[in-house]
Amino acid sequence: MAKKLRIGLLGAGRIGNLHGTNIQNFVPDAEVVIVADPFMNEKMEEWAKSIGISRCSKDPEDVFSAADVDAVFICSSTNTHAEFMIRAAKAGKHIFCEKPIDTEVAKINEALAEVAKAGVKLQVGFVRRFDRSHKAVRDVVASGKLGKPYVVKVCSRDPAGPPMSYVAVSGGIFTDMMIHDFDMVRYLSGSDVTEVSATGAVLTDPGYAEYDDVDTAIVTLKFENGAIGVIDNCRQAPYGYDQRVEVLCEKGAVQDNNHLENEAFISTAESVESAKPTYFFLERYNDAFVAEEKAFVDAVLNDKEVPVGGKDGLEPVRIAIAAKKSLKEGRPVKLSEIEA
Amino acid sequence: MAKKLRIGLLGAGRIGNLHGTNIQNFVPDAEVVIVADPFMNEKMEEWAKSIGISRCSKDPEDVFSAADVDAVFICSSTNTHAEFMIRAAKAGKHIFCEKPIDTEVAKINEALAEVAKAGVKLQVGFVRRFDRSHKAVRDVVASGKLGKPYVVKVCSRDPAGPPMSYVAVSGGIFTDMMIHDFDMVRYLSGSDVTEVSATGAVLTDPGYAEYDDVDTAIVTLKFENGAIGVIDNCRQAPYGYDQRVEVLCEKGAVQDNNHLENEAFISTAESVESAKPTYFFLERYNDAFVAEEKAFVDAVLNDKEVPVGGKDGLEPVRIAIAAKKSLKEGRPVKLSEIEA
Amino acid sequence: MAKKLRIGLLGAGRIGNLHGTNIQNFVPDAEVVIVADPFMNEKMEEWAKSIGISRCSKDPEDVFSAADVDAVFICSSTNTHAEFMIRAAKAGKHIFCEKPIDTEVAKINEALAEVAKAGVKLQVGFVRRFDRSHKAVRDVVASGKLGKPYVVKVCSRDPAGPPMSYVAVSGGIFTDMMIHDFDMVRYLSGSDVTEVSATGAVLTDPGYAEYDDVDTAIVTLKFENGAIGVIDNCRQAPYGYDQRVEVLCEKGAVQDNNHLENEAFISTAESVESAKPTYFFLERYNDAFVAEEKAFVDAVLNDKEVPVGGKDGLEPVRIAIAAKKSLKEGRPVKLSEIEA
Amino acid sequence: MAKKLRIGLLGAGRIGNLHGTNIQNFVPDAEVVIVADPFMNEKMEEWAKSIGISRCSKDPEDVFSAADVDAVFICSSTNTHAEFMIRAAKAGKHIFCEKPIDTEVAKINEALAEVAKAGVKLQVGFVRRFDRSHKAVRDVVASGKLGKPYVVKVCSRDPAGPPMSYVAVSGGIFTDMMIHDFDMVRYLSGSDVTEVSATGAVLTDPGYAEYDDVDTAIVTLKFENGAIGVIDNCRQAPYGYDQRVEVLCEKGAVQDNNHLENEAFISTAESVESAKPTYFFLERYNDAFVAEEKAFVDAVLNDKEVPVGGKDGLEPVRIAIAAKKSLKEGRPVKLSEIEA
Repeated sequence: MAKKLRIGLLGAGRIGNLHGTNIQNFVPDAEVVIVADPFMNEKMEEWAKSIGISRCSKDPEDVFSAADVDAVFICSSTNTHAEFMIRAAKAGKHIFCEKPIDTEVAKINEALAEVAKAGVKLQVGFVRRFDRSHKAVRDVVASGKLGKPYVVKVCSRDPAGPPMSYVAVSGGIFTDMMIHDFDMVRYLSGSDVTEVSATGAVLTDPGYAEYDDVDTAIVTLKFENGAIGVIDNCRQAPYGYDQRVEVLCEKGAVQDNNHLENEAFISTAESVESAKPTYFFLERYNDAFVAEEKAFVDAVLNDKEVPVGGKDGLEPVRIAIAAKKSLKEGRPVKLSEIEA
Repeated sequence: MAKKLRIGLLGAGRIGNLHGTNIQNFVPDAEVVIVADPFMNEKMEEWAKSIGISRCSKDPEDVFSAADVDAVFICSSTNTHAEFMIRAAKAGKHIFCEKPIDTEVAKINEALAEVAKAGVKLQVGFVRRFDRSHKAVRDVVASGKLGKPYVVKVCSRDPAGPPMSYVAVSGGIFTDMMIHDFDMVRYLSGSDVTEVSATGAVLTDPGYAEYDDVDTAIVTLKFENGAIGVIDNCRQAPYGYDQRVEVLCEKGAVQDNNHLENEAFISTAESVESAKPTYFFLERYNDAFVAEEKAFVDAVLNDKEVPVGGKDGLEPVRIAIAAKKSLKEGRPVKLSEIEA
Repeated sequence: MAKKLRIGLLGAGRIGNLHGTNIQNFVPDAEVVIVADPFMNEKMEEWAKSIGISRCSKDPEDVFSAADVDAVFICSSTNTHAEFMIRAAKAGKHIFCEKPIDTEVAKINEALAEVAKAGVKLQVGFVRRFDRSHKAVRDVVASGKLGKPYVVKVCSRDPAGPPMSYVAVSGGIFTDMMIHDFDMVRYLSGSDVTEVSATGAVLTDPGYAEYDDVDTAIVTLKFENGAIGVIDNCRQAPYGYDQRVEVLCEKGAVQDNNHLENEAFISTAESVESAKPTYFFLERYNDAFVAEEKAFVDAVLNDKEVPVGGKDGLEPVRIAIAAKKSLKEGRPVKLSEIEA
Repeated sequence: MAKKLRIGLLGAGRIGNLHGTNIQNFVPDAEVVIVADPFMNEKMEEWAKSIGISRCSKDPEDVFSAADVDAVFICSSTNTHAEFMIRAAKAGKHIFCEKPIDTEVAKINEALAEVAKAGVKLQVGFVRRFDRSHKAVRDVVASGKLGKPYVVKVCSRDPAGPPMSYVAVSGGIFTDMMIHDFDMVRYLSGSDVTEVSATGAVLTDPGYAEYDDVDTAIVTLKFENGAIGVIDNCRQAPYGYDQRVEVLCEKGAVQDNNHLENEAFISTAESVESAKPTYFFLERYNDAFVAEEKAFVDAVLNDKEVPVGGKDGLEPVRIAIAAKKSLKEGRPVKLSEIEA
């Protein structure tokens, strides 16, 4: 393997742009050598050039067949993830795949099987695991110094809802939003989820109801290790991106506060005013994206285990399916009811 | 009515002691003139004398029949609350009754009917409504300046579990502990609960299982006004009394932090260390008890509406019954299923 | 000595009222048996009666000569403190004296000499030492676990300035306000002050200049143990009573935050808003006054050392004199230049 | 002018490396085209190549004479700053100069005169002005919404002292460390300093005394606009980089807290533990360096006023000279006593 990991980028949209720019600027051990996007245009080419990516293509095959590509970053639309994983695996390329791998368990399993057969590394893009605060919480739990986890809580709210066109195809709040939190509770608890029970409401915009979706949801969970948990989501929190996690353990609790825009505060006769939370995921998880990319590059270059593997890609999808079923049927749903 | 409200105290145990001492020291417009407790002993009499209560009795009737008693504080064991309410009402005394009024809906309704008939005032002892932080949260919601409530969250954890002898008779976590939180969510949301779904686990001490109880529970709720909510309880949080509430509304969120033992903090090469939350309810809600007592005295003396009335005494009991049923049957339970 | 400490209260103004009420309500081991005030009037008598003080007098001698008075609380105007101390000492009464003992070193020394001769206990009313947060800071420093103190900082601001009539006779900002902080730095550092350098300005109200006073002052200090320090005062901070202390030591720093009115906070699209600091000394130091009173009663009843003794009463006055001299002469002033 | 600002970098040591890397990665409107360092070596050349700087030289003249250099970044040793400014100005290059310009007023004035004559832009590297929290504090003051500033406070402590070899030549704590804070108080107050009074001590390492320096210092200040202020510095705070500012104004106060390594916190039976402040200036001011560079590039490309100009480079040096004189002579020193 070359000293630097040579990367082929699949997808030059928002998330591809983010990963590509990060790798070129902040990941010294990797370089993007080619980017492919079926909608490749002048603006994308200009961007690629500006960060030193010399080859652009409309054909993903140019990435899979490139001899100088060691690994791919799959940043294309969700419905192409599984297929691209399979093609990459067959071409012997290591894989970083944005979440979710797919919305169907069977397709995920098919893709994971190819990855296993090819013996390439696969990392799934659950970026929040790399956030310095969430990671600090999880590291305390994982260290065991607080004893067994009892209660795992995640609060996750977006500053503004997505466009309804997105809601129409996203698969709903459990698949497009809470999936991050399903991953987070597995990460924090170090355990698999065995049962979920979902409650939801349409509160911020009646439009969600038209797509059989909700904008506000609370899901309680049971874990294999005996712990219980709860996640609450809202698609629209006017004060910004609310991202807080908490684990109550035998000997103490560990949690985190939001990151604020700055640490200044004003005291007046009315109140003490401080800054809001950082606005959205680009602001909050900027450093986490870089950490995620570095971890993948390190895992491949130094043949280490990836920090977020295939099962980590599958399980949140299964939990999301269970949560959707729970909300629809108005009852707790066991994970054993969901295709594995 | 006399300028000072003359109070007869029923029960000289821990909570009776607390109310009696508070009234004598901090409620200038009231005075305790008699205390009755079937287990009245020398130590209790000494305590009564030390705070200026001149009459002690083993017979509650001495309170009900006293011409110089304007109001009673019912601080006896739970199973006597409803009966004492009825006797007080019949005697024309105003009533402050510790929570819960009873664990059975029928008995509560019977007592409330007598109170209504007598036209006396009744306040139920949900003291947390008078905590300065929880009250500040609720006042913001009630002001309407943040718009409609969407999500109501309460986290409530005790520093240490009760003795198993108490668990044996308490009615379980929903009745002896979460009942405060069932009141709190009604207070915060300004709305009634329509459905609950409970999850629970025995994590801190296997002893709870013997009494068919859990020590850790999460309950999701639906409210009449469309909001949804969640409460999490644990009987044992080693770091002390964890008491936090939060309401996400249309235009913002309002929440509170724990009160700490002090505001000092130490920065070293290892960490920044601050004080723990105040230890338990006596430390956290000390001021709230006084505020509660003053509110009752003010309501009676000045013929105002009491801040926590009969329905507020009934509803949390119904929610607790529904939660217990939900946990047992593994399904969401509508409040309409519970006797009203 | 009787089981309860029997107290004679000298002065029924604001501070006498505070101590009297506290002792009757919160200090079980003490009782006020008589109160004397040259301006004794009906309202004062009513107050005394309402808290169970049966004897009221216009003549302080009634206190000094009372056989059933074990100790006095000197809460009269400053110019009477030294004289009352001397009379109390001669009468064999233990003494709690409000700060300052006097504004002149010679008079303080004279009074201290009488106290020493009589062998009675004397505690001076520097109440902030009993604040739970400041005490926690000091206890960390005193424990030695952070090593030697390097830098001691105190920020102290009042919510509103005093009436100009008070400024006219108070002796100026160093004597009427910063004197608390001069005591605080001695308490925190565990060391005496050897040199001060004062800077000041008239910023909030030009009226102060007419009395040769300032409303804003910063004083740097040197301590016998080698540490240095700084105090900043302002007579008018619109957001309330700002009371923060900080000690940088060899192995870490310890500091405190203000106590807030409550722990609620509101997050909106504009900011995160929390409550203000508690308004003024009655709100912030309420608990500290009780702790101070209990400490005195305990010291007398159980023959322990008082926590704030005669030298602690003298030194802040000397530092204030030095600071005033420094501001006037525009140079650092050594404590050795001030009468001892 | 070219679309991108073409930069010649003078000095490839720690700070040159930092600016060079930042510009190449984060400042899209600029590019470093050449770097010169008298000690240019293979490692430096490798670094330059790795970030896309094609030309390396040992001779600064190669920068001044390069036709394709629009602006220089002077990151060489302090004693060369003034000379390089003069040479750059004569060559018509815009100038970013690290602080301090020089330690002597005359040399600074000489350099500023050349800059003025050449009509090139000059920005001085007081990076803390670009920190998001300090900037937020200053913006509130500058907005005028809190009224006039009364008291300006800066606390600045390093996690560990510099090597004694540095202390030997640095000019002492006021010149090598507090100079940042002298700039900060001017920035926060929007006013010039008129008088300083310094106190200092050798507490962390007796070695400082050998170089006639102190490791801990407190300086009080008077400002032209009537405000007063105080700065405290310590060369060694074991808990990391302590960077806090505060301005008390007519209608309120505005201040900031340290940035922490993360926002997680652990609650146990002992305490609540959170992360430490970010370790040192590279961690705390990383984003500020980029903001500073962007501001310079923007000022040159779009002919705007630079945010930190020549006078801002001169004044902190004058204040440092005054502080040093104050400490030595044990008296307040007026800025009018110092060469202007």
